[in-house]
Amino acid sequence: MSSSTKTSVTALTHLDETGAAHMVHVGDKPVTARTASASARLTMSAAAAAALFNQTLAKGDAIATARIAGIQATKRTAELIPLCHPLPLTHVSIIFAQVDNTLHITCTCATDGKTGVEMEALTGASVAALTIYDMLKSIDRTLTFDVRLEHKTGGSRGDYARSTPEPETP
Amino acid sequence: MSSSTKTSVTALTHLDETGAAHMVHVGDKPVTARTASASARLTMSAAAAAALFNQTLAKGDAIATARIAGIQATKRTAELIPLCHPLPLTHVSIIFAQVDNTLHITCTCATDGKTGVEMEALTGASVAALTIYDMLKSIDRTLTFDVRLEHKTGGSRGDYARSTPEPETP
Amino acid sequence: MSSSTKTSVTALTHLDETGAAHMVHVGDKPVTARTASASARLTMSAAAAAALFNQTLAKGDAIATARIAGIQATKRTAELIPLCHPLPLTHVSIIFAQVDNTLHITCTCATDGKTGVEMEALTGASVAALTIYDMLKSIDRTLTFDVRLEHKTGGSRGDYARSTPEPETP
Amino acid sequence: MSSSTKTSVTALTHLDETGAAHMVHVGDKPVTARTASASARLTMSAAAAAALFNQTLAKGDAIATARIAGIQATKRTAELIPLCHPLPLTHVSIIFAQVDNTLHITCTCATDGKTGVEMEALTGASVAALTIYDMLKSIDRTLTFDVRLEHKTGGSRGDYARSTPEPETP
Amino acid sequence: MSSSTKTSVTALTHLDETGAAHMVHVGDKPVTARTASASARLTMSAAAAAALFNQTLAKGDAIATARIAGIQATKRTAELIPLCHPLPLTHVSIIFAQVDNTLHITCTCATDGKTGVEMEALTGASVAALTIYDMLKSIDRTLTFDVRLEHKTGGSRGDYARSTPEPETP
Amino acid sequence: MSSSTKTSVTALTHLDETGAAHMVHVGDKPVTARTASASARLTMSAAAAAALFNQTLAKGDAIATARIAGIQATKRTAELIPLCHPLPLTHVSIIFAQVDNTLHITCTCATDGKTGVEMEALTGASVAALTIYDMLKSIDRTLTFDVRLEHKTGGSRGDYARSTPEPETP
Repeated sequence: MSSSTKTSVTALTHLDETGAAHMVHVGDKPVTARTASASARLTMSAAAAAALFNQTLAKGDAIATARIAGIQATKRTAELIPLCHPLPLTHVSIIFAQVDNTLHITCTCATDGKTGVEMEALTGASVAALTIYDMLKSIDRTLTFDVRLEHKTGGSRGDYARSTPEPETP
Repeated sequence: MSSSTKTSVTALTHLDETGAAHMVHVGDKPVTARTASASARLTMSAAAAAALFNQTLAKGDAIATARIAGIQATKRTAELIPLCHPLPLTHVSIIFAQVDNTLHITCTCATDGKTGVEMEALTGASVAALTIYDMLKSIDRTLTFDVRLEHKTGGSRGDYARSTPEPETP
Repeated sequence: MSSSTKTSVTALTHLDETGAAHMVHVGDKPVTARTASASARLTMSAAAAAALFNQTLAKGDAIATARIAGIQATKRTAELIPLCHPLPLTHVSIIFAQVDNTLHITCTCATDGKTGVEMEALTGASVAALTIYDMLKSIDRTLTFDVRLEHKTGGSRGDYARSTPEPETP
Repeated sequence: MSSSTKTSVTALTHLDETGAAHMVHVGDKPVTARTASASARLTMSAAAAAALFNQTLAKGDAIATARIAGIQATKRTAELIPLCHPLPLTHVSIIFAQVDNTLHITCTCATDGKTGVEMEALTGASVAALTIYDMLKSIDRTLTFDVRLEHKTGGSRGDYARSTPEPETP
Repeated sequence: MSSSTKTSVTALTHLDETGAAHMVHVGDKPVTARTASASARLTMSAAAAAALFNQTLAKGDAIATARIAGIQATKRTAELIPLCHPLPLTHVSIIFAQVDNTLHITCTCATDGKTGVEMEALTGASVAALTIYDMLKSIDRTLTFDVRLEHKTGGSRGDYARSTPEPETP
Repeated sequence: MSSSTKTSVTALTHLDETGAAHMVHVGDKPVTARTASASARLTMSAAAAAALFNQTLAKGDAIATARIAGIQATKRTAELIPLCHPLPLTHVSIIFAQVDNTLHITCTCATDGKTGVEMEALTGASVAALTIYDMLKSIDRTLTFDVRLEHKTGGSRGDYARSTPEPETP
């Protein structure tokens, strides 16, 4: 502020190693149409599956609640994932399928942007799965879920699809 | 993850009726200039109106507080309304008018986007009205407000204007 | 920072009139159980009511979506309403009732806190109503809604109930 | 508002099935000390593991970024999971361990509250895992992760611990 | 999940140095009344000061806007500062004073909590200062501000007050 | 709503002085590439500097935590600063440098937008500085920081650079 606090270049020590986290430059990338789908698969006890699929849960309708929670989470991805670029989503849907005692959740997102929507799809599937856990946890604390990218389109790296996709993926 | 959990297509039951909530596809819609105005009309007791319009409220300046609250709420519309698409607002203003013991709030928004800004304008007017309630509730808990769309421009459905607009609407 | 920028008391001019907005002191208030219910009443066209109540909306299940939107909004009341104190909600529910072409929404909240939950109930009812508007706006842009406090309990000012309560209020 | 819109009890139809989602009453539950730990286990390619553990990622230091992302997510759990009660967290930590090409993340939370912190721990572990995915996705889009509750203490249902805990869990 | 993925303790490598960031345990600390005040001092050109204090700014009333922005920011401190514990604020006020071409902002917060409110007061003062910058930046991009803690009370470390307090601090 | 509440133009009193706060119109401005850098300079005691730069802080790694906090804050600028327009950031980085007992933080942002990113850069630098304060406050409550814009490019007003830039600014 005053001359007494003026810095001397020789005394300056950069604390930033080359590996410091940052949001990478995407300003020069073109805006293109992009989609991505991600899935979460929840494995639970027979009692939990019965309560979920027969809709007898104390907290109410789990599927409708998880659907809205997941959709809303996709719109907050850039707040949750520090190095994600904010994106204007042009479509989000989440579908649910029962396979025996397993719940399959698939979240699909689209945008016209400079970066892809994989993280939005993965975040939507994860938060939908967490919401299901919340509604089942009084019945089955052992419930686990795994999360994966199913497919994506658009972007300079080209399209991608899992070699063993979930059957219900749109 | 392992083959023992691989799904069999025959066992899959979709839980999604055709009416499942989703953020509709807008990727193919053109980006156009859009505006919308919404109003809230607050009906209150004479004592509440006197305190509001004479600025003698215990919590301080109600109009300035409600204005900022409403403007900030417009920017969080897509967080609050689950199926709203996020939009880059290019203008927001909120105006206030006194009509006897009634306060009229009008929120006007603009964007260049693929969807309209009706929900942003309605959300801004509603949160401004809620903020006024908060500052008057120790005087008049019977205060009510109603909310409506005044007019909008842009988009494929064309323009809209109420047949009986509020007189102070810009 | 240094003596050269030290302020002189004589030159200081307070910019704060007595009516400056602030979050009032509640530190000395006791923590007590509190509840509040607020309602929103949506008036819409016959076509909109038919689509809503027959569940044929393009965006999907409006009631389930509005319910979750309203519940989530109650938890963000102190973010939206600038002078609200943050409160740990211990219960939230939102119920819906059809009366001819009108939708009645009632949001009920509870807390153990130093301040009441009127604003949380009003915010939940308002955001649920806005969500319904969002899902019906392609059918009926003239939809309006009004918002009011139905009743509250707890706090030093005592209980309150409207003289003409909505019939479906719990 | 006026008598012409007064509702008639006989015409009222409740739209709420018994299974409507709601935040359950916890007002009568005692405030007790509670803890929970949850883990996420990320399975990735050898190339991704090498880049992660040798810290040669284009976006920078993945572990430090994921740690902060996970901690911040625990504090937003009630925003993300619709029926979660807000809780004042008194401790959060996230630890990371390498097992061959697998990354193990364990998030531990504590509170003094009326409800448990399982969802906070699970949310922290999930968002930390998503953050790692974000930083590795240019190398390995096949990365998957699974999420589970490791143990919890406190609350009327008593303590819980997995029968096959992760070895690195604190 | 299955035995084939069970981890072997010998292969596990902790990635967490002793200095890993975490939200420290405060569960055992008593809940006590706490206050803090922080100030921001903005130094600007004579033209900017004239526009600010004469209220001729293109964006409108800067002081009222900054006051609300600062109050709202105090309630989001735990979202912004990663290792801050969430706190139920019981009071927030922000005052403004002119000293020649300098604006002094003082933010005062109170809580009943296990940790202090210094960060809330500092965050409120900083965001109020940033808001003023936003409204003056078209006139004076050289505006700078400095931020400091003025005083605090409560907590096991005892009270604190600057040796050279700002004259307008309450 | 009914004719009895219809407003009469003659009774209407606008409460909005010409200086009412609003988000100015930027719809007609072109989308251009823009950058900005802002810095925060933290002055602290020798003991605090030693703990910071030797990484012996009780809360853990301060630099990594502040970096992520600052990056995340840039993405929430439009939520914090009421009259800021939301912007899609295309790059964010924050660098840290030691000069004796002083920490220099520089936040650089880029966008393709209708408005500049000065506020994003200033917000990122400020929140990073607040995070450092949080981690050092148990050692040195007298720590102060000042914040300033270093330079910006793009926009109709042309480029700007401080006449006395910080030496470490990129």
